[in-house]
Amino acid sequence: MNPGAGRRPKGGRGEALAGAQSKLVVLAGGVGAARFLAGLVAVAPESQLTVIGNTGDDFTVHGLHVSPDLDTVSYSLAGLGDWERGWGLRGETWAAAEQFSRLGDDTWFQLGDRDLATHVWRTEQLRRGRPLSEVTGRLASRLGLGFTLLPMTDQPVATRVLTNDGRDLHIQEYLVREACQPEISSIEFRGIERALPGPGVREAIREADLVVIAPSNPVISIGPILAVAGLRAEVAAAAQVIAVSPIVGGEAVKGPAVAMLESLGAAPSAVGVAGLYADLISSLVMDQVDVELAPEVAALGVRPHLCDTMMVDQSARERLALAVLEAASMSVAVSPQLA
Amino acid sequence: MNPGAGRRPKGGRGEALAGAQSKLVVLAGGVGAARFLAGLVAVAPESQLTVIGNTGDDFTVHGLHVSPDLDTVSYSLAGLGDWERGWGLRGETWAAAEQFSRLGDDTWFQLGDRDLATHVWRTEQLRRGRPLSEVTGRLASRLGLGFTLLPMTDQPVATRVLTNDGRDLHIQEYLVREACQPEISSIEFRGIERALPGPGVREAIREADLVVIAPSNPVISIGPILAVAGLRAEVAAAAQVIAVSPIVGGEAVKGPAVAMLESLGAAPSAVGVAGLYADLISSLVMDQVDVELAPEVAALGVRPHLCDTMMVDQSARERLALAVLEAASMSVAVSPQLA
Repeated sequence: MNPGAGRRPKGGRGEALAGAQSKLVVLAGGVGAARFLAGLVAVAPESQLTVIGNTGDDFTVHGLHVSPDLDTVSYSLAGLGDWERGWGLRGETWAAAEQFSRLGDDTWFQLGDRDLATHVWRTEQLRRGRPLSEVTGRLASRLGLGFTLLPMTDQPVATRVLTNDGRDLHIQEYLVREACQPEISSIEFRGIERALPGPGVREAIREADLVVIAPSNPVISIGPILAVAGLRAEVAAAAQVIAVSPIVGGEAVKGPAVAMLESLGAAPSAVGVAGLYADLISSLVMDQVDVELAPEVAALGVRPHLCDTMMVDQSARERLALAVLEAASMSVAVSPQLA
Repeated sequence: MNPGAGRRPKGGRGEALAGAQSKLVVLAGGVGAARFLAGLVAVAPESQLTVIGNTGDDFTVHGLHVSPDLDTVSYSLAGLGDWERGWGLRGETWAAAEQFSRLGDDTWFQLGDRDLATHVWRTEQLRRGRPLSEVTGRLASRLGLGFTLLPMTDQPVATRVLTNDGRDLHIQEYLVREACQPEISSIEFRGIERALPGPGVREAIREADLVVIAPSNPVISIGPILAVAGLRAEVAAAAQVIAVSPIVGGEAVKGPAVAMLESLGAAPSAVGVAGLYADLISSLVMDQVDVELAPEVAALGVRPHLCDTMMVDQSARERLALAVLEAASMSVAVSPQLA
């Protein structure tokens, strides 16, 4: 594959990536991945794209199955997402939350009215015995997504945060209810030992010309995907793998990635990210502000690809997607051992 | 009991009914019962009132347990109901319904956003193994109701309409989706043979000084309650039982009661209503426009009590409630065989 070779001047969605037959896989968490994907689908053909989403964040609220990362990707790529807030639907209303509150239910995990309908719908589909992968596919199709969205697994996995003060929190409790305040002792992917790759996940990685690890939290968003039985090895064996660092200038663009990396003993920097993925990736697309870290990344056997990674608007998202595709083609051109 | 004897000039809620210890039970369907109850709680002490609600209308929508009649009573008496529309919550919004529609779900059974939250909440409580009676009590308490609301049974009962064109419809499909258009062949209360009276239902009827059959559809709203094992006999043995006719001038105030009565071979009039309840009631409170039917009602051994039964506003609702209490006291005074 040489995605950059036949690149034409941008004339519309999906025309930048050479060869409409090049297959892309993106490993995705939530909002960082959604932003990246919004750029990617504008410059590469959606029909050849498979997104493998993290389900370690999945959570039960009011008895409903919520898939925060899958929904952030679906909503955002369906053009329904709220980029400002980073989650949920644009123009959302909150009447149901008022009623839950009146009925005495916890409402720290906010669900808008339309979002609630999604979860009611998903829960009912699951209760009819359909696996999450099938339900996710139906949802994606009904929202009009042009790519394939696969949950990493159909089995339940719960990312848990064990805190220094002895608490055992679901990742959503840590992120939302506790606002990332507790000090992290360790992180577990509970249930991961019984999780099998979801239908089509292995095949998509095997057939991909390029696997992109989105700029998502390496520990709690990408970590669960790579921890599903056999998936890390599958990604390591893929044709080409490139990651985008979610850490810029020593800070996470969004969320608690710094604390998470530190909890693993990894540096909260592009170097730490490169270290976590060193066995998988040929290149790390990292922000140009971190230019002084490039030698350390290269020392890990990972080619640093510097560019502006801040996805402040749609054109920045598209530029980042193009940079990733360029990095992929460069790797092929100059690093034969990675081909 | 002589609820009228000590009646004081109305000085506030609950002061009209003599003796705060007089126990009242109301058998209730949906909107007609809710209107009547709104009047009753303004003139009699709520704490002595038990409402036994129909659950034959209960229905599963989007996988959620909906109790239309119980909710109409709860919402209305909590001051949250939409009197104009006759069901649901005042000021309701419909964002979730849009999303259900986007996801391809049927939305003929409309659920507002706040209402949806109620059903999500109820369904989750039921799934935790709590019986409907307990869940209904919690809901009533959280909505601030001052009376006791009991479902007729904790077991599932479904009122089904068999049509002349061979269809077997849930009552909600008949009422809402089919807009009462199909010709009725017969009506069944499916599951009724396994339904036991809900906790407290028998006791409330036994201890009641007065049982009022609300102006609800005698066939599909009151019928299921009386069909629960032993309840018709329990009502027949109650201290005093008075019904309010929901048929005025040969027409139902609301809903398909006329077609329903005809399907049972009963006259669609106060006479037909008196006939269905003749073994239970001492008096029928009926509209004064039907004065010419009074002799026929009396001929069934039921004392007709004529008044304006149209509950067009709150003062009309209160007048009707007072008329029922007066009818109860008159019966005691003038009809020794009914005491």
